[in-house]
Amino acid sequence: MLTPTELDRIYVVLVRARNPNNIGAAARAMHDFGLRHLRVVNDYPVPFESARSAVDASQVLADAVACATLADAIADCTLVVGTTAVGERDLQHPLLPLLQAAPRILAELRRTASTPGRVALLFGSEKTGLSNQELSHCNWLLTIPMQQHESARHLSLNLGQAVAICLYELVREPAAATSAAPTPAASNPAAYAPAVPSVVADSASAADLDRLTTLLTETLDRSGYSRRHVANCEPLQLRRLVRRMSLDAVDVAVWMGIFRQLLFKLRRMD
Amino acid sequence: MLTPTELDRIYVVLVRARNPNNIGAAARAMHDFGLRHLRVVNDYPVPFESARSAVDASQVLADAVACATLADAIADCTLVVGTTAVGERDLQHPLLPLLQAAPRILAELRRTASTPGRVALLFGSEKTGLSNQELSHCNWLLTIPMQQHESARHLSLNLGQAVAICLYELVREPAAATSAAPTPAASNPAAYAPAVPSVVADSASAADLDRLTTLLTETLDRSGYSRRHVANCEPLQLRRLVRRMSLDAVDVAVWMGIFRQLLFKLRRMD
Repeated sequence: MLTPTELDRIYVVLVRARNPNNIGAAARAMHDFGLRHLRVVNDYPVPFESARSAVDASQVLADAVACATLADAIADCTLVVGTTAVGERDLQHPLLPLLQAAPRILAELRRTASTPGRVALLFGSEKTGLSNQELSHCNWLLTIPMQQHESARHLSLNLGQAVAICLYELVREPAAATSAAPTPAASNPAAYAPAVPSVVADSASAADLDRLTTLLTETLDRSGYSRRHVANCEPLQLRRLVRRMSLDAVDVAVWMGIFRQLLFKLRRMD
Repeated sequence: MLTPTELDRIYVVLVRARNPNNIGAAARAMHDFGLRHLRVVNDYPVPFESARSAVDASQVLADAVACATLADAIADCTLVVGTTAVGERDLQHPLLPLLQAAPRILAELRRTASTPGRVALLFGSEKTGLSNQELSHCNWLLTIPMQQHESARHLSLNLGQAVAICLYELVREPAAATSAAPTPAASNPAAYAPAVPSVVADSASAADLDRLTTLLTETLDRSGYSRRHVANCEPLQLRRLVRRMSLDAVDVAVWMGIFRQLLFKLRRMD
């Protein structure tokens, strides 16, 4: 099971949720599974406020934070995971079924004892899900595998159901960790840590990645790359390119130093 | 995964559901996870009829059967499982957490090839759950494990969420059936290796990464970064920095293009 401090490092982010009942249902699922941090991103305050009165006042809703932008809502998170129903959209992100996504999320929460990760789970609006713009903030995506029907567009879990299933899977503890016989791997949380490091570093925060993206964008503009490769340099493309680097806090600082120096040099040319 | 004929032998039975939206949400979850048989037990026809119009007409709702009594609803089933939130009630039935209940349900569905079992999953009313009278029809009970709060009565998944989680767990294929044993996947750390999930594109080859490292090295030399950050620019450091980007074959080409352009520009300055 997740510890209370681990549960407290999961942030459920509802983006453009329209229906107060759904916000209320998401909050109830969070309460039931022991999560506390709900962030709601909306252009207007209505559904959030209605949700507060729509269900039994729960502490989750009372403490929920309204954010003006998605960037604000995830700024302090070290891993941003989007949820998608995988419709006809052309996904440009790595996509994992929930069952495989959960251990990676747990690994991030347990990354180091001193500075553990903070994970944002993003859910889009009931009608349209997350936009490409919103997806570009994500490190990767998860989906709840469902039955293949004639038309994928008929898949229609509601928002409260999707949140509940995701939290159930996270809190349940993934198969390998609980019921896969008491192997050393199962009892040792480090078994889920990414294989890369002998030294485990902190993940870069979303705010760091935004800053790096801005630096990269200006560097590409100054160098003339943007004019020659227009499609590669659209803001969404560059944001995704930086997210796919999977940077930790140390490397993001190195790359920022590199691009600052490049920019300094390129500016002197003009 | 469950086969279509196995899915067709699971019957979701809603007993005294009050809210048409909840009946609709349960039907949607069933549709999404490939189940077809919904039975609704009520003294009066109202919520069932409203649910039909409340959501997009789905085949599950269209085919749903209204039953006058619970006994009617489960008459043809070989295993009857009740769901409960485990409140203050004095349970007189064996109670299993969902994770352990699922394999038993699957075992019943697959009991024999000639006369396989049919399983009823009972969900009670939103307010009170299943009554003792209703529970008495059950072979055993399952519960969705949730966080222990001060008061168990605050646990409040709604009906649609409870149905969705149960069906997710059944369709997901429980741990015991797939990954319980220390399978290669569970015992092999490489299974969790890539920091970025390896879904979309092929990984970059080592030769590509070498070429990118060479380009990066020359770019840093030309820009003056190497003189100012000597330790960061040792060959091993740069090689590791590039490896930690976890690039796929597409992104490595993008980054090579970026550094070629930067180098081209920097060379023109000298």
